[in-house]
Amino acid sequence: MAERTWEVQPGRTFVGRLEKGSDLVAELERICAERDIRAAWVSVIGAVSHAAYAYYHQGDLRYLELASDTHHEIAGFIGNVSLRDGKPFLHAHATFADEQGACVGGHLLRGITVFVAEFTIREMTGVELVRTFDEEFGLALW
Amino acid sequence: MAERTWEVQPGRTFVGRLEKGSDLVAELERICAERDIRAAWVSVIGAVSHAAYAYYHQGDLRYLELASDTHHEIAGFIGNVSLRDGKPFLHAHATFADEQGACVGGHLLRGITVFVAEFTIREMTGVELVRTFDEEFGLALW
Amino acid sequence: MAERTWEVQPGRTFVGRLEKGSDLVAELERICAERDIRAAWVSVIGAVSHAAYAYYHQGDLRYLELASDTHHEIAGFIGNVSLRDGKPFLHAHATFADEQGACVGGHLLRGITVFVAEFTIREMTGVELVRTFDEEFGLALW
Repeated sequence: MAERTWEVQPGRTFVGRLEKGSDLVAELERICAERDIRAAWVSVIGAVSHAAYAYYHQGDLRYLELASDTHHEIAGFIGNVSLRDGKPFLHAHATFADEQGACVGGHLLRGITVFVAEFTIREMTGVELVRTFDEEFGLALW
Repeated sequence: MAERTWEVQPGRTFVGRLEKGSDLVAELERICAERDIRAAWVSVIGAVSHAAYAYYHQGDLRYLELASDTHHEIAGFIGNVSLRDGKPFLHAHATFADEQGACVGGHLLRGITVFVAEFTIREMTGVELVRTFDEEFGLALW
Repeated sequence: MAERTWEVQPGRTFVGRLEKGSDLVAELERICAERDIRAAWVSVIGAVSHAAYAYYHQGDLRYLELASDTHHEIAGFIGNVSLRDGKPFLHAHATFADEQGACVGGHLLRGITVFVAEFTIREMTGVELVRTFDEEFGLALW
């Protein structure tokens, strides 16, 4: 692999709160699509009433899906936005804490139900991050 | 709920280190208050000698307080600053790791004792994020 | 300790992806060194095939090293770059999730093997963050 490091420019910055009951990943992607945000770094703090996440099996090259109806605090979050199939795609991982403080985490899937979610989206311009399927990884990468 | 997404402008950026023995949340709020930082995104890396955090019970609409005298690494952190009662208020969640690497986490309370804490505060301007009590959630939200 | 809070200026922003099999910490430091990035805030999302991390024993003032050959998702990440021995030094902590979603975490060491790692590096200018050994902490701090 050739080195893949790009210098980018800061674009717009957005801050907001997602509606209770909304789908965390889908809502953030919708907000990006409506504003033509094609590359960004995203942070979220809040709590969810249902968590849907996954672990990528690096040997079998497939996601193992996990879910929990436990109400969780979002105790860690990292995410970015790039393009997949021409649309803004959120790649995000998080840690979820339960009422004893115990944590689970992984790759976020659609189907996470928001209780409260405050977010920031920091757009990056001057780069095209386009996910395409990579056979070696079994993943859509840029 | 009407959609709550605001475009903001980047303001000042601060970096620093909190004093050993200080109260993590209170110190960051003091630093913001002294500089008139009214909205920001915050990140912290370090370790604590006492952790105080909480889980929000979404059914009972109240926080369950948790604490630990275990020394912890801060293994994940997300946080923002907005106004509550006219003063900068830090809303932060974190993951704490112990000497086996095991993690607990949640909503940060006052009473966390800093061992080492390196922080960045990224101010946002052009928006007023004011927390007011929301009966549906039992929380002060913007 | 005198208060250590500095206002800094945003510098360049980089985004990229690390090569599979590379050493996460060493590669990010190399990328910074080649671009003369001397202070930055860093975020990473991805997965690793080997994790190497540590817990700092605050009483004995030494790191306890931990490692795991379990493949992990990076479920939380915080990090910054400053100078140590005249070179860019990455101080990063992370949370790692396994196939049940269970999390471990701590201070990142060299020896973490990348599966996929998408990163952003946000340079800060107008400050010199130089790590020097602090006897009270047993750590190199700025």
